[in-house]
Amino acid sequence: MTQSGFLVLLTDFGLSDGYVGVMKGVIAQINPAATVIDLTHQIPPQNIVLARFALMTAYPYFPSGTVHVAVVDPGVGGSRRAIALAVGTDPAHPSAYLVGPDNGLFSGVLSQQPLIAAVELTNSQYWRTPEPSFTFHGRDIFAPVGAYLARGIPLEALGQAIAPETLVQLAIPAIRIEKLDGRTSRIIGCIQATDHFGNLVTNIPEAQVGGKKWMVAVSNLTIPGKQTYSDSASGDWVALVGSHGWVEIAINGGNAQAELKVDWGQEVEVRVEDREEGC
Amino acid sequence: MTQSGFLVLLTDFGLSDGYVGVMKGVIAQINPAATVIDLTHQIPPQNIVLARFALMTAYPYFPSGTVHVAVVDPGVGGSRRAIALAVGTDPAHPSAYLVGPDNGLFSGVLSQQPLIAAVELTNSQYWRTPEPSFTFHGRDIFAPVGAYLARGIPLEALGQAIAPETLVQLAIPAIRIEKLDGRTSRIIGCIQATDHFGNLVTNIPEAQVGGKKWMVAVSNLTIPGKQTYSDSASGDWVALVGSHGWVEIAINGGNAQAELKVDWGQEVEVRVEDREEGC
Amino acid sequence: MTQSGFLVLLTDFGLSDGYVGVMKGVIAQINPAATVIDLTHQIPPQNIVLARFALMTAYPYFPSGTVHVAVVDPGVGGSRRAIALAVGTDPAHPSAYLVGPDNGLFSGVLSQQPLIAAVELTNSQYWRTPEPSFTFHGRDIFAPVGAYLARGIPLEALGQAIAPETLVQLAIPAIRIEKLDGRTSRIIGCIQATDHFGNLVTNIPEAQVGGKKWMVAVSNLTIPGKQTYSDSASGDWVALVGSHGWVEIAINGGNAQAELKVDWGQEVEVRVEDREEGC
Repeated sequence: MTQSGFLVLLTDFGLSDGYVGVMKGVIAQINPAATVIDLTHQIPPQNIVLARFALMTAYPYFPSGTVHVAVVDPGVGGSRRAIALAVGTDPAHPSAYLVGPDNGLFSGVLSQQPLIAAVELTNSQYWRTPEPSFTFHGRDIFAPVGAYLARGIPLEALGQAIAPETLVQLAIPAIRIEKLDGRTSRIIGCIQATDHFGNLVTNIPEAQVGGKKWMVAVSNLTIPGKQTYSDSASGDWVALVGSHGWVEIAINGGNAQAELKVDWGQEVEVRVEDREEGC
Repeated sequence: MTQSGFLVLLTDFGLSDGYVGVMKGVIAQINPAATVIDLTHQIPPQNIVLARFALMTAYPYFPSGTVHVAVVDPGVGGSRRAIALAVGTDPAHPSAYLVGPDNGLFSGVLSQQPLIAAVELTNSQYWRTPEPSFTFHGRDIFAPVGAYLARGIPLEALGQAIAPETLVQLAIPAIRIEKLDGRTSRIIGCIQATDHFGNLVTNIPEAQVGGKKWMVAVSNLTIPGKQTYSDSASGDWVALVGSHGWVEIAINGGNAQAELKVDWGQEVEVRVEDREEGC
Repeated sequence: MTQSGFLVLLTDFGLSDGYVGVMKGVIAQINPAATVIDLTHQIPPQNIVLARFALMTAYPYFPSGTVHVAVVDPGVGGSRRAIALAVGTDPAHPSAYLVGPDNGLFSGVLSQQPLIAAVELTNSQYWRTPEPSFTFHGRDIFAPVGAYLARGIPLEALGQAIAPETLVQLAIPAIRIEKLDGRTSRIIGCIQATDHFGNLVTNIPEAQVGGKKWMVAVSNLTIPGKQTYSDSASGDWVALVGSHGWVEIAINGGNAQAELKVDWGQEVEVRVEDREEGC
């Protein structure tokens, strides 16, 4: 068995109703020894883009073989597939299992990890009931499947294999890099998420700017890259590499999203000096 | 021992202060092996009606023998009794234990499950202290009693037996069914809860409408019964059976409660065609 | 080993992003057997005063030897020290371990418990990485150190000992007691916290007023001391001893902080009659 015994939940159910608690009850019935961890349940309703980002930036910090059950599912009750995936570089020991709707939620993780196997959840033996509700697959399909998976049921038992190329992708465009001259590069990316501080997270990774002199252009602003907030004054625009490893744009002590009124997908440009001298 | 080792918490304490964490600390001191699950802590302050509904619709999804500690307790420090109940059809293996104030919180569960035993929590040996605070019985009485119960202490040890008919009931009226003619029935019920989407949940169970043609009348609206949201357009009024098994009234993508300005107790009428033909 | 295996988290990270979940993932990798309890993650951003109060009033309710990881850390990435403390009256069995930034967070606990040992977290072997991020020491230093500590790693292994007198203190002034005449005392204290109900919590402990006749003066109000809310009418100003053991000022069913517009540090005066007769 390669599962870790840990099961991580990510939903947009909020915490005011008992929906998340009920999913944990279903898990406890199937797999009382599982340790359940909440990633967050406050994804804005039906926001697959932010759910994709939350999962992509969090999964590396969990034990290898952890099962992630993610339910942000605007298509529940319709024709979207329910799926489970194994990802990682070692097929014998997947680094993570992913369970949820096939709507692009997992495309962030899949941009970082090779897919080992993918199944559609067609085997109702591992559901809570062969006649699931139309509105709450988190309780009736995803939580029970996750609980069985965390208990050691093999992925292949959960349903029929599906072709990787048929998985729904959320289209975050790849970054483009242009050499401007011998010492300057231009990287065109976009905003891929915002957080509750209003920080704008781009899809430009730390590797592109680390140890270099750089600046960000977004809307009509140009913002110099810094290492920490403490390099700037309160109220200043700041560009830095966030703790998740991506270039982000913030206002020190303020809300960049509210100020710029931009959202995910917005184009962003970073200019990088390959050497420190000159400008 | 018939307890499951699981202990579920339901309160109106919110998550911004440390009250819930402190209850978990008290539980950990008494029963470090218990697995504690949060149902929700965001019941609107002192709203026994919604707490009753949350517990009634959630308890079936937890392992048999789970202890539910529910603290929505406007009468704390006054004369209301503190109680513990065992419910279920098999007296040797209760399906659930319920611990909390005697204020009607448990009357939803009791409408679905036979009462096996009821005690008043008079044995201070199982409290955190024989001199509990006037304001925080969750910490001083209910959490410790729940922890002992989940550890295997028998219900009868917690205090003196009380007569079932003396338990405080929250009066959700029973539904009334009238035959209108050979093929149409009228079911008069009421709204028993609202959720954070503003959906209005009635007390009319799925069994009354499943597989039939039906419609709901509330205020001056008449709304046709559907199977899923995807049968309606955004902004439409929808009536359907929610995942908890009750007829509910919603606006697809909107807030029915804000629109209708009705609350629990409001009368609702469902008309059901026993056969599909005609109208 | 004197650790309890319990690890309590207190932060201002909120629950809408995955930050807290990621800390739990890091803990799970290091110490999969730890039981993690959330005290709260909704401390107002960077409010060390309220975090100090939440921790001080909660730690006594957890098992002896529990590890508290507290991250309210406006100075992250700057020069403030990262520390771990052991506190209690028995050096062989600390009642609690405290892990977090050296910014006064722990000064409330230290006002109640002797310090056994203090170290600066200089040993990067117990961090997640020897090159921690500039912005997320909760993930990179405090969670992993807490997880190792809860697993039984001795405090001294975490870094070099530091002198107790160098720990940052948050200056909540001590109360002053004046004898006015043979039977009346005046106690001058201050507001040390507010809660989400708007109640004003003073630094005057129950021992000063228990069993006596007393009243509170704050701003231009004089409020008689009561035992419970049920001794007052809705809308009345009330002074009583809260469940945490301090004199607090409230409006029955209202928000005292919003009404008085005072904050922590505000001076408060209590008058106590040592005997019941007279006034």
